[in-house]
Amino acid sequence: MSYQELQDHFRRIGQFNELAAIVEWDQAVNMPAAAGPARAQSIAGLSGLTHQMLLEPRLPEWLSAAENDTGLSFWQQANVREMKRLQKRASALPSNLVEATAQTSKLSEQAWRRYRGENDFKSYLPYLKNIVDARREESVALGEALNLSPYDALLDGYEPGVRTATLDSAFAQLKAFLPHFTDQVIEHQSGAPCIPFQGPFPIEQQKALGVSLMNMCGLDMQRARLDISHHPFCGGVPRDVRITTRYEETDYASALMGVLHEAGHGKYEQGLPEDWQHQPVGEARGMIAHESQSLLQEMQVCRSEPFLNYLTPQLRKAFPEAFERQPEAYTADNLRRCYTRVARGLIRINADEVTYPAHILLRYDMERDLISGKLAVEDLPEAWDAAMQSLLGLSTLSNDREGCLQDIHWPIGAFGYFPLYTVGAMVAAQLFSSAQAQIADLDTQIEKGNFEQLNTWLATVIWSRASSVTLNQMLLDATGEELNPEQLMRHLERRYLPE
Amino acid sequence: MSYQELQDHFRRIGQFNELAAIVEWDQAVNMPAAAGPARAQSIAGLSGLTHQMLLEPRLPEWLSAAENDTGLSFWQQANVREMKRLQKRASALPSNLVEATAQTSKLSEQAWRRYRGENDFKSYLPYLKNIVDARREESVALGEALNLSPYDALLDGYEPGVRTATLDSAFAQLKAFLPHFTDQVIEHQSGAPCIPFQGPFPIEQQKALGVSLMNMCGLDMQRARLDISHHPFCGGVPRDVRITTRYEETDYASALMGVLHEAGHGKYEQGLPEDWQHQPVGEARGMIAHESQSLLQEMQVCRSEPFLNYLTPQLRKAFPEAFERQPEAYTADNLRRCYTRVARGLIRINADEVTYPAHILLRYDMERDLISGKLAVEDLPEAWDAAMQSLLGLSTLSNDREGCLQDIHWPIGAFGYFPLYTVGAMVAAQLFSSAQAQIADLDTQIEKGNFEQLNTWLATVIWSRASSVTLNQMLLDATGEELNPEQLMRHLERRYLPE
Repeated sequence: MSYQELQDHFRRIGQFNELAAIVEWDQAVNMPAAAGPARAQSIAGLSGLTHQMLLEPRLPEWLSAAENDTGLSFWQQANVREMKRLQKRASALPSNLVEATAQTSKLSEQAWRRYRGENDFKSYLPYLKNIVDARREESVALGEALNLSPYDALLDGYEPGVRTATLDSAFAQLKAFLPHFTDQVIEHQSGAPCIPFQGPFPIEQQKALGVSLMNMCGLDMQRARLDISHHPFCGGVPRDVRITTRYEETDYASALMGVLHEAGHGKYEQGLPEDWQHQPVGEARGMIAHESQSLLQEMQVCRSEPFLNYLTPQLRKAFPEAFERQPEAYTADNLRRCYTRVARGLIRINADEVTYPAHILLRYDMERDLISGKLAVEDLPEAWDAAMQSLLGLSTLSNDREGCLQDIHWPIGAFGYFPLYTVGAMVAAQLFSSAQAQIADLDTQIEKGNFEQLNTWLATVIWSRASSVTLNQMLLDATGEELNPEQLMRHLERRYLPE
Repeated sequence: MSYQELQDHFRRIGQFNELAAIVEWDQAVNMPAAAGPARAQSIAGLSGLTHQMLLEPRLPEWLSAAENDTGLSFWQQANVREMKRLQKRASALPSNLVEATAQTSKLSEQAWRRYRGENDFKSYLPYLKNIVDARREESVALGEALNLSPYDALLDGYEPGVRTATLDSAFAQLKAFLPHFTDQVIEHQSGAPCIPFQGPFPIEQQKALGVSLMNMCGLDMQRARLDISHHPFCGGVPRDVRITTRYEETDYASALMGVLHEAGHGKYEQGLPEDWQHQPVGEARGMIAHESQSLLQEMQVCRSEPFLNYLTPQLRKAFPEAFERQPEAYTADNLRRCYTRVARGLIRINADEVTYPAHILLRYDMERDLISGKLAVEDLPEAWDAAMQSLLGLSTLSNDREGCLQDIHWPIGAFGYFPLYTVGAMVAAQLFSSAQAQIADLDTQIEKGNFEQLNTWLATVIWSRASSVTLNQMLLDATGEELNPEQLMRHLERRYLPE
């Protein structure tokens, strides 16, 4: 009885979340800018409502009863666990604090859009201070309720179970490995530059290629759309996936890899168990799990030699005029050189697979120090510059726009999010290495554009398990070990410093 | 204090309605069919929520206090009146009845889709009986609460204040006028057939023309979109209007007039007062008012000679290949003949301006008798056939698919809706006749594609007044009289039987 009530209650929350997902996609894809303020209020109203539903006074009683109900199935028990997690997080924060933080975050984001454009850290400083203070206060309250350190409490909101201790150890190994490795790769690549592709690449041709490749990779396009938005993302719901991208006529390459990256997210969503739709246990595990699927698709598969061999004739067909202009560029070898180019740069989202982790390492250290108070917000530009110098040999002095102001995450209060990108890359490498060990001639299959066995394997070890177990458990079952950065480093070595 | 609480409460409802409007548009335009059942549940959850919010126990107390508050402005008083109207209607129906009707309606709609396709009235009969019974029960409960007859209670839900007595008198005049008039028109037109337009008309060209004409007619396309759906409609919210259409490559004409019709709805929405967004008083008056705006745009303006004179060169430019194929068809005179063709037919949505009211008159009589119980549901096909014979001289015996099964309205329980289409046409004619009297050389302006003065006038007399007064009051203020079918008949005579 109690369990059924819980399931009904959380189904309603899940249904409201579905509506929010569609409306948020719409906001990014269709809505005229002038409708933004009213729409934002409407969405805030809905998220306030679902927050209130987590504070339903009878919930703790229902949850206790369900926890003591020995008749529940494995999935029902897991569902109760996930419900409790959501309820505990929601209850840890007083409503007025949640609302104040939402308001602070909105003002901070608006100010960031303005002052980043003007490269004016000083003017933005008070807003950033406010949002750091607000999230620090939240993290302390959350940490107390969940018996975690404040920063771990933030991490746990994005990927349940992940802890600073795990990240510290994994990142230490990467930090020791990357600088010298990056030097070697750049040196190695210097003799074999890639031939840059010359546009135009008509948007319609780009879109047709993207859709056909996503479909071929196993994203069911009968249950997914591809549209345009300023910031690419994968939204919607499992039975109605909404992928977006941004095209440039002069360059097909970045949109294409972006689309394939999002397809990895979309396949995960489509592979979630339908029986548990609208229930907490039916959702994707967390942000690391999600990023592992997009990075497995993009980095492990689509930038690999077998896939680029497969892609080459497709590109020639998709862009016949461009191919005719520049036949020498459309070889598997040139594609490989272009798609695995390594160069140190200031901007995270433009970074390649090898230098990307450096961008994350510096943010991870800095955001922990911001939340703990060890780093004062006003000292951020200098700290950023020092870290960039140390990790990538680049300076951002007087260039905060391309330094500590470049990302939206901190301005909106998303502390604890950055490190999970790189953990996602580690998990992707770990999973793919196991897939290769367990699927005979996976490379040959990929070279033929055949993803069936890989997708079946991923569906078994990740997608279909949804939130029924921890990420750690999925990793153990799939690869025989917990998180281990080793496979990512070996992958980078094999790809970027081949014998 | 009380008024402020009311306004906050209804703002939340309005915000949820905004989200529902966007998600419903999305459902028709973007959603894959397989996602339909889950989405329908999510939308039903939201509408259940807003219904519950109208049943908030403190509402009656807040409303009484606000009604006695002498410090409220005219608009605030009107807002309280509208709030009370919504609250009274919601409270009149027990929640279990609302849910049962929703369920009955869903089953009936599904069965209708199937059995209409199979032209099988007998198999559909039990479903239709159920939905008629359900709505009859609702209409009795509503009528008691609102002190109206059951059918008037249904009418009042679509357009507050409209009553059977008014419709009866207006429709009696039309019924006397139309049959002979239709004969005369068909006779008159027999000597001058229109040259049918030969496609193809590429969709992209059709869309570009539609967008440009909507914009020119005064719909701000910065705050509106035009997309494709199976059934054309105007959705969204005032600052984000979503118009849809359906194109056929072989025929530009029907989609074009459809788009201009919806543009009339959209202009009304965009003209609603921004200060009252998300409040009941800020919404469009009702279904008659809305239809009057779309029909004024489509029938009064866009099928008029001045507009068709304006349209002719635009068409030639929009479809250069078609024009080259058939230059003789692209004359103002041929456009006029094509766009004002009159013919008796079985299908309401294909009917022209002259025969359309006959379709409404027969449905009006029949649905009142269904709701009162005077007409048994099983006798509907015979009654339909008799009425079609009498009004249009056509038979639908053994052809229920094109007879009483043709429309979705009754299957979903929308009784009381049909008559308002024709009242909308009357109001449109009445308003446009006053506009012509009050705006010097309106025809010349339209011929030049200049809609500024007409739009300003409509904004003043209808759009900006939202729900602050009754439709009757708006009509009185704008035209000097209450609803009067006279102008529609005079309009038809002028257009279809010119001297």
